[in-house]
Amino acid sequence: MKIDVLSIFPEMFENVLGSSILKKAAEKGAVTYNVTNFRDFADNKHGTVDDYPYGGGAGMVLKPQPIFDAVTHLSEGAGDKPRVILLCPTGVRHSQKKAEELAKEDHLIFICGHYEGYDERIREHLVTDEISIGDYVLTGGELGAMVIIDSVVRLLPGVLGNEESPLLDSYSSGLLEHPHYTRPADFRGMKVPDTLLSGNHKNIEEWRMKESLRRTWARRPDLLESYSLSETEKKLLEDLKKEG
Amino acid sequence: MKIDVLSIFPEMFENVLGSSILKKAAEKGAVTYNVTNFRDFADNKHGTVDDYPYGGGAGMVLKPQPIFDAVTHLSEGAGDKPRVILLCPTGVRHSQKKAEELAKEDHLIFICGHYEGYDERIREHLVTDEISIGDYVLTGGELGAMVIIDSVVRLLPGVLGNEESPLLDSYSSGLLEHPHYTRPADFRGMKVPDTLLSGNHKNIEEWRMKESLRRTWARRPDLLESYSLSETEKKLLEDLKKEG
Repeated sequence: MKIDVLSIFPEMFENVLGSSILKKAAEKGAVTYNVTNFRDFADNKHGTVDDYPYGGGAGMVLKPQPIFDAVTHLSEGAGDKPRVILLCPTGVRHSQKKAEELAKEDHLIFICGHYEGYDERIREHLVTDEISIGDYVLTGGELGAMVIIDSVVRLLPGVLGNEESPLLDSYSSGLLEHPHYTRPADFRGMKVPDTLLSGNHKNIEEWRMKESLRRTWARRPDLLESYSLSETEKKLLEDLKKEG
Repeated sequence: MKIDVLSIFPEMFENVLGSSILKKAAEKGAVTYNVTNFRDFADNKHGTVDDYPYGGGAGMVLKPQPIFDAVTHLSEGAGDKPRVILLCPTGVRHSQKKAEELAKEDHLIFICGHYEGYDERIREHLVTDEISIGDYVLTGGELGAMVIIDSVVRLLPGVLGNEESPLLDSYSSGLLEHPHYTRPADFRGMKVPDTLLSGNHKNIEEWRMKESLRRTWARRPDLLESYSLSETEKKLLEDLKKEG
């Protein structure tokens, strides 16, 4: 996979794309990253990328020309049809499903604005996807792009080793994870549940299933609505509801 | 505000906290950042911070000791009662409201795991808030911490100048933003709507209100449910519904 990022703060990406799994994925050849400062594509001598909004008002708006020309340049060179992703608060909410969908592509181009708005023609004529990572206001699209890149790259074949795999994958199973414990069994008076120390695998499985259901029911009952419970899970959930 | 981050990848934060608004906020004295590698607090000679899960299974679990001792050290020094925030997929969803709430605090400590799970005793006895930035799987808590920090710091008094202000604040008004346009009025045949070029401020206001409603209705009808429409907005929304 080829990942291009357009940003006027390219240095923000260095250590994020250069650490941990995102770094290893590039070293393994699963992905190449290229961060472009679209100011370099501005056709005016001052490198201006924004201007005042038509109709008045506070704030600045990103001009269409530098971004159109940068995307054209990056797509032509690649000879493919990239997904062009705009990070913006009015986009569709990012999700694990969207990450899985993007992980099948050959080429992603991320456009990051930075406190400016985008000229609407960028959305209408250049962009294939508008994505928001959540209902909160951020200073720019850079962190959103990093978040989406991380969620996608870790899904590429061969990227995750065993040690990095499944513990945190709450959203893949459809339920929230059960609690985890590691040594010591007694940490300053705080103890690990006896079941987990019992060595009885059937009881451990059931404890985990029940705690996973308990947490999902308490924190994210919406996930249960779209989850199809097994017979055992149904019974455990009924027990939980009786317990209150 | 004082912001502490615990991570075994402290270098990931350098250029993010050192760019743009987050950098300016520190320069203006609105915030101080301190990123701590909690591996430095491990009480074993190998600096081990994780171990196998009790009860078996793949993946590793972060040990309680290094994180407890790091948080104790950072809280004691400060002489305050910090909010201790765990980034995790099973936490409450981050929101603009949560950012506003956190912006009132004096001291935030973020705990970032990295593909490991957390020993449950960290959640139960150390952490005040468990937060998730969205329903997708990330490799670690680092990007989540950056996202929350950005959403909080930009709300601190004196941090945002006029030029960085309100264009992207879709979630503050309760509706999605209307489209923006800047020069040129005709970019390679793609034109700016006539109303915005008219100079008639009443018409421009109405166009913006209507387009904001149109976008919210099309993309995020859930936002309309909790928004109280003015009489003018009600009429415009009815018009939109008639138009289909």
